Amino acid sequence: MTQFINSTDHLVTDALDGLLRTHRLSRLDGYPHIKVIFRRDTGNASVALVSGGGSGHEPAHAGFVAEGLLSAAVCGEVFASPSVEAVLAGILAVTGDAGCLLIVKNYTGDRLNFGLAAERAKALGRKVEMVVVGDDVALPDLPQPRGVAGTLFVHKIAGHLASQGASLATVASAARAVAKAARSYGVALDNCTVPGSSKDARVPTGKAELGLGIHGEPGVQMIDFTTATSVCTVLMDKLGESLDGGTGQVMLLNNLGGATPLEMQILLKTLLDTASGQHIRAVIGPAPMMTSLDMHGFSVSLLPAQEEWMQALESPVNCAAWPGSHRVGAIDVQPLPEGLRTTPGDSSHDESVSGLIADSCAAFLAMQDDLNALDARTGDGDTGSTVAQAARNLHAVIGKLPLADPPALLRAISDQLSVSMGGSSGVLLAILFSAASDAARAGDDTLTALREGVRRMMTYGGASLGDRTMIDALVPALDELLDSGSLQQAAQAARKGADATARMSRARSGRSTYVPAASLQGVIDPGAEAVARYFAMLAARNTSQ
Amino acid sequence: MTQFINSTDHLVTDALDGLLRTHRLSRLDGYPHIKVIFRRDTGNASVALVSGGGSGHEPAHAGFVAEGLLSAAVCGEVFASPSVEAVLAGILAVTGDAGCLLIVKNYTGDRLNFGLAAERAKALGRKVEMVVVGDDVALPDLPQPRGVAGTLFVHKIAGHLASQGASLATVASAARAVAKAARSYGVALDNCTVPGSSKDARVPTGKAELGLGIHGEPGVQMIDFTTATSVCTVLMDKLGESLDGGTGQVMLLNNLGGATPLEMQILLKTLLDTASGQHIRAVIGPAPMMTSLDMHGFSVSLLPAQEEWMQALESPVNCAAWPGSHRVGAIDVQPLPEGLRTTPGDSSHDESVSGLIADSCAAFLAMQDDLNALDARTGDGDTGSTVAQAARNLHAVIGKLPLADPPALLRAISDQLSVSMGGSSGVLLAILFSAASDAARAGDDTLTALREGVRRMMTYGGASLGDRTMIDALVPALDELLDSGSLQQAAQAARKGADATARMSRARSGRSTYVPAASLQGVIDPGAEAVARYFAMLAARNTSQ
Repeated sequence: MTQFINSTDHLVTDALDGLLRTHRLSRLDGYPHIKVIFRRDTGNASVALVSGGGSGHEPAHAGFVAEGLLSAAVCGEVFASPSVEAVLAGILAVTGDAGCLLIVKNYTGDRLNFGLAAERAKALGRKVEMVVVGDDVALPDLPQPRGVAGTLFVHKIAGHLASQGASLATVASAARAVAKAARSYGVALDNCTVPGSSKDARVPTGKAELGLGIHGEPGVQMIDFTTATSVCTVLMDKLGESLDGGTGQVMLLNNLGGATPLEMQILLKTLLDTASGQHIRAVIGPAPMMTSLDMHGFSVSLLPAQEEWMQALESPVNCAAWPGSHRVGAIDVQPLPEGLRTTPGDSSHDESVSGLIADSCAAFLAMQDDLNALDARTGDGDTGSTVAQAARNLHAVIGKLPLADPPALLRAISDQLSVSMGGSSGVLLAILFSAASDAARAGDDTLTALREGVRRMMTYGGASLGDRTMIDALVPALDELLDSGSLQQAAQAARKGADATARMSRARSGRSTYVPAASLQGVIDPGAEAVARYFAMLAARNTSQ
Repeated sequence: MTQFINSTDHLVTDALDGLLRTHRLSRLDGYPHIKVIFRRDTGNASVALVSGGGSGHEPAHAGFVAEGLLSAAVCGEVFASPSVEAVLAGILAVTGDAGCLLIVKNYTGDRLNFGLAAERAKALGRKVEMVVVGDDVALPDLPQPRGVAGTLFVHKIAGHLASQGASLATVASAARAVAKAARSYGVALDNCTVPGSSKDARVPTGKAELGLGIHGEPGVQMIDFTTATSVCTVLMDKLGESLDGGTGQVMLLNNLGGATPLEMQILLKTLLDTASGQHIRAVIGPAPMMTSLDMHGFSVSLLPAQEEWMQALESPVNCAAWPGSHRVGAIDVQPLPEGLRTTPGDSSHDESVSGLIADSCAAFLAMQDDLNALDARTGDGDTGSTVAQAARNLHAVIGKLPLADPPALLRAISDQLSVSMGGSSGVLLAILFSAASDAARAGDDTLTALREGVRRMMTYGGASLGDRTMIDALVPALDELLDSGSLQQAAQAARKGADATARMSRARSGRSTYVPAASLQGVIDPGAEAVARYFAMLAARNTSQ
């Protein structure tokens, strides 16, 4: 089995029960044969709207049973019309004195079963009208055009009128006008998979089938698929043949089931960008509304944007399956905010700071090969190169740095590292120096500020002591320095911390998280090693000065 | 290309532009590098919520930019974190005096880029907090659990609080509590397809991968997939390990992209039916919320159903991507309506009617082989058998029919035909007799009533004169009979009409619609032939009596 079902025998009732458990809807006690989902909260005071047909088109139709939409949905098995008895049961369940409108997609089985049920209901004294939707323009020579996603226009507009208390004559007349004016066209890159059956893999890779039906029945033409634009142009040209220029159009963009939300958004943009797309005033979707199981395709339905229809389509409903109607507008593009790009502080001079930075850069450059070798044993072997690249770049700009202004200098270093040092470590160190700059500006001395920067780096990076990262050397070293003021002792603490990483069998953060414990044993983390060597340099430098 | 895109170079900006054309949102002028979608209608008076990350998870996150949800989404390329500069731009675009909360899924790139951007924004004087969501329980040994669909809980609850004017401290604290309490687990029957790349077809047919990440990264285990129930039980057992019994749970049921709406509804029912499912008090979805392109899978996220969280999740928002939170209840099952099954009228006797029906049944039985032979040339060769079956069944019940009550008799014949005659023709004739019964009850004589029945059958069936159906014989015969009262002339009209169908090169309705014109030439439509022979029998019978 390759679909999330339990059995082809009761997949439709399973799906309906999922809906029923989470919505204030009712069903008739007629499973498995009679599958009627309906609203019992209406008191049947207004005109009832009943739709339905074969299943496999979810959320249509049961998902649209809601105030302002359908009163009842009569559901058949997958791609099979419900029986006359089931439709009649649906009509009788929701039809009061105001009467009932049946909204039927134009397939022979549906038309006849709903039709006979309508006759039976009339014989039982119910007022019943029926509208047949045949919106598919894909097969122009078909005497009975198929009913597809344009049916949703009828549901929403008739549903709005019914909820406003309109008479059956008014609702039926509006529904017929909408059904007559709606037209749809679909395209798919792959056919659907009927549960329990193998797929008719009719559409070869690289091809698109135009006008494929919502049951996977053959379309009008197989074309080469190149881009979304090419296929959208074909669709809109076809639909545009009958565009009446005056009012503009409402577009319903329907996911046939297997297109991703990302693709659907791209298609929306692409459709609006076509020549005919300029006439589109509002969009319903993109969303799965009238699907064909997992068909990787979409359909476009257009309806003239008459004001009363627009209003009915835009009236809010409490129905998650209905995506709403959104007016089309130009894109509002706003300028980038001020302050986005850091302006380097004014450069200033400080001999001792300049010397410290130069020596630091030299020290990191000197570690390059050793760090790469260490990293090669537990990672991708580029720690040395990454550090050296950052050191080289920082060294090149020493003269431009605000050396005499510690908060500004810390920020400048952060900015440098964020652009010149690749990978996570560049961002982590940029965070360290950025947070240190803030702390320094708030009054901390530089060392305390750097310790605060390390804390913030740990917060964002997620590493703690013992996680086999540079933290294991850096934190003890800084703490020691803050505590004792001795660079000597700080260097010892850093070395001890770095060496300890060789005994940590498990990396819990950073580069070595996915490396097996055995490979880590005896290998010092290259980040911690860099810190230890750096502090050793500082201690030696301090002694020699 | 096998996806509806135009180019992998600008697929994300294409998708965002689709959203922007149809929503009152803005974007920053930073394409292609800076992709920030934001609300400009807030005046930045309340706490801003900024989320984002790599794309490919639509509608997350841009689809959730709305009042009561996010203020801005910062979008990277597919599965790639946005840059520090892009995140900073997003923060600066929407953050006023009330400050900003960053909601970040726990992936290293996102955590660091959002983290550094937060530091930069703070340095620019903005109040910024950050919450990291790590709700995935699939890989329990991962020190940094991944952030997946549970992030939506945080968006909605924090968004509700922010829209209510809560302070940054309050919003951030609530967001952290929700992030800490949320846990998610996913499963897929197939991996995702990254646009422009070939799919890592890691999941073999018949298997399911548990804990697959939303970028297709490996999960915890590959299991045999048998039914929805088996996989839902595994998921809920795992998630249930940390269920706290008291409050119950809210479940967010997320389509990872490639599951059909039908499957998702089945999964909802199945999840609620598991042992742990009894604790679920409300459901968000099923819907695609945090997708992984076209991954054929779903994820379940649970959150303790604390009252204030429930209320925040249930507060309405004007956002099509947010499916709402629905309380779980029992299924309301209502008895079938009265009058659904037709009760046969009281039988009554009328010698002449009884004789007519018996002779009619005999006539239709006699046509069986000839009609089958005709149908075999243009259809599936069963017209004769279908008609004979109906005749046989009707003949068997003659004694039980209300023979002396024409409206009741017409209805009884309709009911008989609808249950005993297969295919479309059974329903069509049932409609004919049902409508005729109504007309007779309204006062029409039987012949006029039958003509009305034919009119209604044509309405529901969609066939007109000249469409190569039984209509082509039936309508002229009845019209002639109504006009002249002569069965002789009616029989001639029927024969003429039937013969004419042999010259109709194109069926526009019914059984032969899909048969090539050449195959139709010279073959009389079997339905029309049946009518012609029947009227011939009536005329002969009339003469002999």
